[in-house]
Amino acid sequence: MQATAILETVIYADDPAGCAGFYVSVLGLEAVQEVPGRFSFLRCGAQMLLIFAPGPSLDPVQQNGIPTHGAKGPGHLCFRAADEAELLRWAERLTELGVALEHRHVWPTGRSIYFRDPAGNSVEIAEAAIWGL
Amino acid sequence: MQATAILETVIYADDPAGCAGFYVSVLGLEAVQEVPGRFSFLRCGAQMLLIFAPGPSLDPVQQNGIPTHGAKGPGHLCFRAADEAELLRWAERLTELGVALEHRHVWPTGRSIYFRDPAGNSVEIAEAAIWGL
Repeated sequence: MQATAILETVIYADDPAGCAGFYVSVLGLEAVQEVPGRFSFLRCGAQMLLIFAPGPSLDPVQQNGIPTHGAKGPGHLCFRAADEAELLRWAERLTELGVALEHRHVWPTGRSIYFRDPAGNSVEIAEAAIWGL
Repeated sequence: MQATAILETVIYADDPAGCAGFYVSVLGLEAVQEVPGRFSFLRCGAQMLLIFAPGPSLDPVQQNGIPTHGAKGPGHLCFRAADEAELLRWAERLTELGVALEHRHVWPTGRSIYFRDPAGNSVEIAEAAIWGL
């Protein structure tokens, strides 16, 4: 058997709601569900981005049967840009919104841009071509 | 503008290659690139699962211009099952392979199963219907 898609990508933030606001206002994700101080769940196309506060999600009592998890320190994720033109539009939009670009990278088969979310996670937008996708 | 897909999902493991072996043999992901002790990159359909050792990925010297990141503690991710029949086949396959199911959950609109990867990350397989997807 082969898993064919990742349904939920998870990052951590001590203030999930504040962090989620960034993904809504800057990346255009759709807010789906939220418990302030615990988690914010966002939709991105056919996938979900889940932002958890690692304290509560490591607590078996608050997890109430759901397996515990919770990581500390800056995570990383990358959103898909269809092509270089879309990536350039994203770079312009981030600059307009006052989001500092931390790095621009040229890979053998495409480009990436990097910035930080409010929790310090490293966010990338990359042309799918960097992975031959 | 709206991001429409997450291209890279990231988890952490002190032994990325060992952890990647689990995702290849159990979940059927395709190994793409690997530097032992630093990272293993796997393909899952039109997405990538990147497994980093958080020590090196937090080191600006080893990152060589790529923004640093690295989280410690058990992360979480979830693979997509098309429907309940596929989820049940996954549960059977995990049991055949000797992977302990940590939890089975019934959500209002579908089901999940949970287990652990060798690094202790919480891995879930869920029907896409749990998110209305």
